Amino acid sequence: MRTHRQELWFQVPARRGFINITPQVEEAVRASGIREGLVLVNAMHITASVFINDDEPGLHHDYEAWLERLAPHAPTGQYRHNATGEDNADAHLKRQVMGREVVVAISGGRLDFGPWEQIFYGEFDGRRQKRVLVKVIGE
Amino acid sequence: MRTHRQELWFQVPARRGFINITPQVEEAVRASGIREGLVLVNAMHITASVFINDDEPGLHHDYEAWLERLAPHAPTGQYRHNATGEDNADAHLKRQVMGREVVVAISGGRLDFGPWEQIFYGEFDGRRQKRVLVKVIGE
Amino acid sequence: MRTHRQELWFQVPARRGFINITPQVEEAVRASGIREGLVLVNAMHITASVFINDDEPGLHHDYEAWLERLAPHAPTGQYRHNATGEDNADAHLKRQVMGREVVVAISGGRLDFGPWEQIFYGEFDGRRQKRVLVKVIGE
Repeated sequence: MRTHRQELWFQVPARRGFINITPQVEEAVRASGIREGLVLVNAMHITASVFINDDEPGLHHDYEAWLERLAPHAPTGQYRHNATGEDNADAHLKRQVMGREVVVAISGGRLDFGPWEQIFYGEFDGRRQKRVLVKVIGE
Repeated sequence: MRTHRQELWFQVPARRGFINITPQVEEAVRASGIREGLVLVNAMHITASVFINDDEPGLHHDYEAWLERLAPHAPTGQYRHNATGEDNADAHLKRQVMGREVVVAISGGRLDFGPWEQIFYGEFDGRRQKRVLVKVIGE
Repeated sequence: MRTHRQELWFQVPARRGFINITPQVEEAVRASGIREGLVLVNAMHITASVFINDDEPGLHHDYEAWLERLAPHAPTGQYRHNATGEDNADAHLKRQVMGREVVVAISGGRLDFGPWEQIFYGEFDGRRQKRVLVKVIGE
């Protein structure tokens, strides 16, 4: 069994945003030399997500509006977490809807994906450097 | 380390529906010959889910009504994604709530489940052939 | 490849509650002797979650209030599942938002975590003994 570990770093300039990280994950799988196995891709921060969906800007706008409706940022005083001096309680909630991590099969040395699957980093409290972990296991 | 890969195909006749796929996943684990490890089961489409919950029709009705309340299908024009000519933006949202994938432990050659755990394929934009990937790793 | 299996048992005295189970998962990883691999941590019950977020009581209060808004417990008659004699349909819904499982990388014999990541058991229908499964694979 072999393993491979890699960190990806991002700085989203706004509070929220989505970045397609599929090429970086593919590159990490290639670098691992692993042909058959699994790759875990997870946000290392608790106000961000890694998820798989469509690379379509209209949909990303819909996610943004929908998450803001399910867990609005303002008024920030509606959340007890923000009494700690933070203003990001909504980001901790949005991240639960979108998820922390994905696990993807590796078959024949490649991400074993359906036709439209793409991996995204979802940022809900950006404007600073944050990390994603890629861990590959297999052989 | 051994791996095993299998696709399951489904055609849900309506736009939305839930199918218990536990027997097919069990069969894939048996076919793999793997006694100790993990199995990843994921939708290969981005308007469908794989999740674990109860095989109780009343609950499935509750999921349907609840997801429709959280992310209504109509009016379709409320979603920017649908300006691409699609009418399935709601399906991309519902799938995030229910999740893309499950990872299940394999112990002694069997799915290592609590008493009521069952694996479901959740379709949110059906009426065509769609796939689930089963990837088993272990030994 | 090695594997290790362990169950953690909990009894949450109220219907709902969150327990930080990071120390128990770390202990299971240590007991496994596995230095590089993955650990799956999942609820074995379908009205409970395992998730990763912040160990901050204000945030846990916010989760409780938010989940109750997304999927209210009462009136219990609003859910068809409860016609079976149960009163926990809302717990099956809340668990989907918070998730069933997490998969965490193990690197150098330790949980490969960002600065604030902590693993929680989320109970939505407590007041009885329930289990979490920890399955470690790697070498």
